[in-house]
Parts: sequence; C-alpha cells; structure tokens
Amino acid sequence: MHVLDNLAARGWRCADLTLRSLARHLQGQVIEKITGPLGLKAHSSTNEEKHNFVLKTPKGSRDFHPRQMAIREKVFGTIVNCFKRHGAQTIDTPVFELKETLTEKYGEEYKLIYNLEDQGGELLSLRYDLTVPFARYLVMNKITNFKCYHIGKVYRRDHPSIRRGRYREFYQCDFDIAGKYDPMIPDAECMKIVHEILTELQLGDFLIKISWEDVKNEMVGENGLAPEAADQIGAYVRLNGGISLIEQLLQDPRLSQNKLALEGLEDIKMLFRYLRLFGVTDNVFIDLSLARGLDYYTGVIYEAVLLPNQGEMQFQQQNDHAEELLNVGSVAGGGRYDELVGMFDAKDRKVPCVGLSIGIERIFAVMEQKAEISEEKIRTTDTQILVAAAQKNFLEERMKLISDLWSAGIKAEMLYKKDPKLLSQLHYCEETGIPLVAIVGEQELNDGVVKLRIVSTREEINVPRGNLIEEIKKRSS
Amino acid sequence: MHVLDNLAARGWRCADLTLRSLARHLQGQVIEKITGPLGLKAHSSTNEEKHNFVLKTPKGSRDFHPRQMAIREKVFGTIVNCFKRHGAQTIDTPVFELKETLTEKYGEEYKLIYNLEDQGGELLSLRYDLTVPFARYLVMNKITNFKCYHIGKVYRRDHPSIRRGRYREFYQCDFDIAGKYDPMIPDAECMKIVHEILTELQLGDFLIKISWEDVKNEMVGENGLAPEAADQIGAYVRLNGGISLIEQLLQDPRLSQNKLALEGLEDIKMLFRYLRLFGVTDNVFIDLSLARGLDYYTGVIYEAVLLPNQGEMQFQQQNDHAEELLNVGSVAGGGRYDELVGMFDAKDRKVPCVGLSIGIERIFAVMEQKAEISEEKIRTTDTQILVAAAQKNFLEERMKLISDLWSAGIKAEMLYKKDPKLLSQLHYCEETGIPLVAIVGEQELNDGVVKLRIVSTREEINVPRGNLIEEIKKRSS
Repeated sequence: MHVLDNLAARGWRCADLTLRSLARHLQGQVIEKITGPLGLKAHSSTNEEKHNFVLKTPKGSRDFHPRQMAIREKVFGTIVNCFKRHGAQTIDTPVFELKETLTEKYGEEYKLIYNLEDQGGELLSLRYDLTVPFARYLVMNKITNFKCYHIGKVYRRDHPSIRRGRYREFYQCDFDIAGKYDPMIPDAECMKIVHEILTELQLGDFLIKISWEDVKNEMVGENGLAPEAADQIGAYVRLNGGISLIEQLLQDPRLSQNKLALEGLEDIKMLFRYLRLFGVTDNVFIDLSLARGLDYYTGVIYEAVLLPNQGEMQFQQQNDHAEELLNVGSVAGGGRYDELVGMFDAKDRKVPCVGLSIGIERIFAVMEQKAEISEEKIRTTDTQILVAAAQKNFLEERMKLISDLWSAGIKAEMLYKKDPKLLSQLHYCEETGIPLVAIVGEQELNDGVVKLRIVSTREEINVPRGNLIEEIKKRSS
Repeated sequence: MHVLDNLAARGWRCADLTLRSLARHLQGQVIEKITGPLGLKAHSSTNEEKHNFVLKTPKGSRDFHPRQMAIREKVFGTIVNCFKRHGAQTIDTPVFELKETLTEKYGEEYKLIYNLEDQGGELLSLRYDLTVPFARYLVMNKITNFKCYHIGKVYRRDHPSIRRGRYREFYQCDFDIAGKYDPMIPDAECMKIVHEILTELQLGDFLIKISWEDVKNEMVGENGLAPEAADQIGAYVRLNGGISLIEQLLQDPRLSQNKLALEGLEDIKMLFRYLRLFGVTDNVFIDLSLARGLDYYTGVIYEAVLLPNQGEMQFQQQNDHAEELLNVGSVAGGGRYDELVGMFDAKDRKVPCVGLSIGIERIFAVMEQKAEISEEKIRTTDTQILVAAAQKNFLEERMKLISDLWSAGIKAEMLYKKDPKLLSQLHYCEETGIPLVAIVGEQELNDGVVKLRIVSTREEINVPRGNLIEEIKKRSS
C-alpha cells in the first residue's frame, strides 16, 4: 500500500507537521517553543538572575567526585566484606524518622537535629545516627536476637570541618549484635572486627582504647578525685601485660574480699582472654580518659585511633596544614548499650546490644591524603578495552564489535563520533587508563582479524576475530 | 612492684570505686544511675507514655529487611555491573540541595518537594530526582563531557502506593551521557543499556516505547488533531518492520521535497540502524501516546514496560490484588535533555545530555513478588561454616578455630554461648542456611582433626586441622 495515500486521507498537513517536529527533535536542536515551566524558565532567565544564584552544595555537605567514589567503593568493599565474614545480615532504614522517635535520645545534641518543614502531615527529622533507628527497628519487628550491619547517611547541624572529615551529611557504618548472650563474647567479636577492618584498610598503626564512662565520672566527677589520680589509675591497667597485672590484683588479699571488684576483674580478664584468642591484644589498652560522645552507652566503650606513620611524619614537616590534616582522631568506636531498645518498648523489654561504628568519613579523608602523598593514579572506570577505528566509515563495524564484547561481559567503550581520529582515540585511553585498544579497518576486516594494541607498550598484534574475547580476558586478568 | 601499695598511696577508696563500677558495667547489668538525658528518660518514661507514641516509619517510607536487602544487593549488583561495562564513572551528591537549586525545575510538581525547616542558615530541600543535581554538578565543575551513573534516594511528597512500589523515599538509579557528539550514538547506547539490564534481571518480556513529546503536543494539543488521528499516525511508524517503512516514506516524491521531513526520517533511520547493530530492535517501537512525567526532556524520550508472563497470569487468577501487584507500569525510562544544564550556567553554555533512569523500586517489587510466587529460599547471610562444639568447655577452642578461619577469609560464625547444645547449633544452621559445621571436641583435638559436617546430607568427615581451610573453600565454591 502507498502510505502517503493513507496519510493524505487523514490530511497531509498533519503528516507534514509530524515529520517536521520529529526532525527538529531527533536532531536535538534548540527549538523556539519548549512546553512546560522548564522551557519558559530556560528562556526567561537572564544571565544577571543566574549570577545572583550561587551554585554550591549546602554548608557541610559535598559531592563525591569519581576519584573519591573509587576510594569510597574500595573502603566500603573491605568493610562490608568483613561484616559478612562475621555472618552479619544487613538492613536499611529511611533517611528521615518521625520527630518523636529521635526525641530525648541525644541529650544536649538534640539541637543539632535537622527537622523537616511542617508541610502538613507528620513531623519528620533527618536521622542523627543509625543506632536509634536500629533500636526502633528491633522493637517494631519484635526482634530479640540480631547480628546486622547498617550503612547510611546521617545528618548533624554541627560546625563542619571539611579538612578533618567532619561534615553535616556523612556516612555511618555500624555493626551491632543484639541479644542476651554470655558476657564478653559478642563484645570481643566487635573489637575483633574493628581490628580486622583497620588492619585490612592498611591505615597504619592504630590503638584501641577501652574505658567505661561511669568509672570516669565517679572518679573525676563531683565527689571524685583529681584527673591526675584518675590517669594514674589508668596507667596501672594498661594492657601491655594487662592480664598478668589483673592476676596480680586478683591475688591481692585486700581485693579478694571485695565481691564486685573480683567480678569486675574476672570480667576484664575474660574480655582480654577472648581478645587474645582472637589475636587482638597488642594494640588494645584501657584509657580512663576516653569518653564517647553519646549518652546511650551503658557498659564497656572503646575507640580506635590512628598513629601517624613515617611517611606522614615527613608529609607533616613539608606541609603546614598536614598536622591538622592527618590528626583525624578516632576512626572507629562503639560499646554496649543495653537500655536503648527498652526505651522504645511499651513493656520495657530489654534487648542488650553491643556495637561498633566505623568513622568512615575520616577514613575517606585519610585514604585521599595517602593517595595524594603517594601520587598513585586511581582509575575511575574499569573499562578493559576501547573499540577504535583507524579509517573513516567504520562506525557500524565498531558498534557491531563492541556489542559482541558487551555480550561477552567485556567492559568496553567507543568514542561517540562517526569518524574519530585514531590519535584522539588513543589519547582517550592514555587519559582514562584503558589498557587495550581493538582497532578495526579495511585490511583487518578482510583478514578476519582485529588489531589489538597494548596501550602501555604500544605493541600491536592481529588477533583472529574468534579469539578476541578470550585474548582480552587473558590480558585483563 | 606491688600495685595496691601504689593504689593505696593514692587512696584505696578510689581503686575500690573503680573496680566496683567496672564490675557493674562490664557485666552489662542494669545500673541504678545512668548519666545524661537518655538515662533519665529511660527511667522517667512510663508505659502509658510509650503506648501513646506509635512506633512506625514515616508515611510512604519503609525499612528494608535482610531478605529485601539480599534482593536489593543482587539487583544493584547487576545494574552497576552493566553501567561499568559501558565505561561509566560514578558520583554522589547530597540528599539535600539549596532550595533555589530545585526552584522552577519541576513545573507543577514543585509542590511535592520536601523542604527542611528554617533553623537558621541556608534554606534546604530534599532532592526530587538525580537529574537536576547531576546538571548542577556538571556546571559547578565545568564538565562538558561525562559518562556517569548516579544512584541515590530521592524524595517526593506524593500519594504513596506501597503495593505498586511507589514511595515518598525511593531509590533512583541513573545513567547519563553529557557532551556534544554525533547524533543518536549515545542515545542508542542508553537504550542498549536499558535492554541489557532488563534482560539480565530476567524480569520477563518487556517493550521499549519511544516518542517525542512535542510531536504529540502539536498533533493533539490546541491547534492539533483528534487523538484517533494521532494514534493512526503512530500506527504507521510502529517499528516492527519500521526501517523498511521509513525507506518507503523516503522514496515518496512528495516527502522528498520536504527537507525537515527527510532529515527527521534519516534520524529515525539512523537510531534504529544503531539499535539493530546493538541487537535491540525486536521489542522497541514508537508510541505517540507515551508521555514522560517531567518537563526537561527536549528530544527523543523512551520508557520500558514489563509484559506479564504465564506464571504471573496464573498468580493473578489466584490472587485478588495480583493484578494491581503486577501492573507495575514502567520499569525504566529516559530521554534527551539538552536545555537543563544551560539553566545553571551563567553564560547559558549548553551541554547536551541523554540519560536513562531504572525504576528500581518497581523492579524490587517485581523481584519480591517473583520470590513470593516461586517460594525460593533467599539467604540473608553468606556464612560458609558454623564453628561448633559437642561438649562443654570448648568455647576457647571454638574461638581459636574461628579466628583462624576469619584470617583465611572464610565466612564463619559461632554461637555466643559458653556451652551451647549441639542441637541448637545445628538448628541455627538449618535456620540460616549455613551449609557446613566444624565440630571441635576432645577426641578431635587429640587426633589433630576437625569434624566437618555437611548440613544438607548430615554426612560427617574428619579433616586434618591443616587441610580444613582448603576443604571448606573446595566445598564452598
């Protein structure tokens, strides 16, 4: 049938219109009339207007650039891998919670909570940490035994310090064990996990400090002692040789008459015996000066801090800000919070919990600085090969080839030009770190081969079309 | 030296206090006095108070349970893998933006934007999509060529429909190609990516509909035609055999006199030639009835919809709500937006963009329903082996062994009890799907072996301690 006859039957004008509009839009040309407020805005807005509008991210927040994302993926990969190695499940909770869910959980820090505008309906706040949503989750789902990790962004209207990796929007990365268990076993595993993660991330030497806040309070609080004395006590229970020290205390007649003291010593002894079985004591010690920020901790608390290494020392000498840069403080922390879950439970049922939180933003900051110092080149894509042509009119051959590579699971790119210059294609590889180039051309096509170029050595070999995928996989592994 | 002499020298009372407090806290017992508002709340709040406080997530939001997270990880894994196969970098932007960044980008839908409360400082809104932040990112960083994916949560104060996977907090999952390139090449790759992802996720048959909104507007808008006529036009350019149809039109003398019409036809021809080279035409067709929600599209737009399959048909017959359940509408969409970036640029510099967005929440919904239908058992952990004991007093041996397994990268768990019953340990494996158990005991210890139990077959073999890791890896692969 002759289509235009039918079109004519329905009016030529409309068909003509159709095709003209079609032409304009498929060409992606700027068109006179764009429907909708966006279109209007795009044409009404003058440069002056735009100049008044400062283009930025909100204070204390940031975009992650591809290079930072590459580091972030690597770090999260290591951490999640460790959490899974310890048999954790994972959950996710909303970025906002009912305002009342967060009420009276953070003491004075409630001032730092972001509230959403009352636009009708529920009053909402952005989550301040992942621990309160986790407790809310346990009670809502009547869970009394749970080993889980929880990674997400949290929000605090705090004074940001970008250099030190302190932001208003930042990731938290938590691992928690909920349930009634025999003492110190889950607590020891949490510290083991912190130890594994910091070791695997190769952040350099670190210390895990352990304390229990109320002791500190009783000793240096109102009716307590002078801080010097407290620190002295701390010095006695340092854990380099800590267990022998505890033995010594246990054998002391004056101590052995104090039941609670004995139990306490037995518990420390137990914790460190477990840590030793896990191969984690060399860099763990008790430090009474330690204090965690939040109120919900009820038992042992701990914090991991990095020790600057040789290279960083040198970096510090060379850079004014380096000291501040590298002094990132604690990179992990956690402790026992046996009361929090009960607060959400109408029947006050307690679910004892112990957890840890990885100071992921600080770790990002350290990793970025390390990359900066070592000037290591970080790739932001995994592309294995660029499909290129040396002659004109080979776009379709490139498309056929790249489609085959994609089907075989090969990570491949091509330039979005009909006839790109070979030089610009090779330059793209240099720029983005693509190690291989597959070059198609008249001669190769006739010979049934593809010219494979190794970017680093500039070596070129002809590979039979049928062996190409195998060859790429071999050279990529 | 005798420690208590030194302690005494600094006052016995304090040492005593230390240890008593220590004992209380390390035992994780409920203590009389908890410092900070949390502690006070925990004791002041009565059951009545708690009953008045409804424990829930905000309207239109939800927690992801471990089972859902397992599905989510699988889906994201497939998608990200595909994006990387096409050489994309990735970025992340904050969950909130300056309010004015979102102003006048969404037409009437601006009403659905969540604003943050004015607590002093900048006025902020939660991001409504990832496309506007992406455009803001390009201009802020003066980027004119970029191939990138962007995955994050976005927020819309819309009427939620949980059943159909429509939430107020939901993930978006975008892939965008920015830059001036030869026509249709990046556009074709975006459709190729949608095709690959929907195929790999095995969601069943799907269609990719293509349209260009302004054509529709001109034809059925004010001075346009009746919808019937428009649909008729649509009928002519259906793409089952579409290219031959275009050839036919091109040869028509009356058309060949219309330059724009010719260009338009050449462009469609080009797009579908490229799609054919990518092996993507069988389920792609033009549908003038298609309309994307947002205003910023300027060229070709497209949308992918699932077609219910046999199993789901049956499911529908058996379940009242199934039809609604399975009618998830579009699962991917995108198009060209050449104007948006210019809106942020003071000098009005245009950066042509084409992109796609995967309707990830709808895909989660479909996957969860499929799992429900097939009743497949989804594991929420990857644990390879449980380290167990058959006798009492083997906690420390279990800890030593599990520590070695963790060091070797084996995913291993143990129960947090001193002397758990063997039965409860085996039950835990059945429950959580752990395939192997390593049992330590007196006899095994003396023989230098570990008893390895295969949970599914209940087969038990003694493995020399030195071969255990190798054996586990062999049986886990």
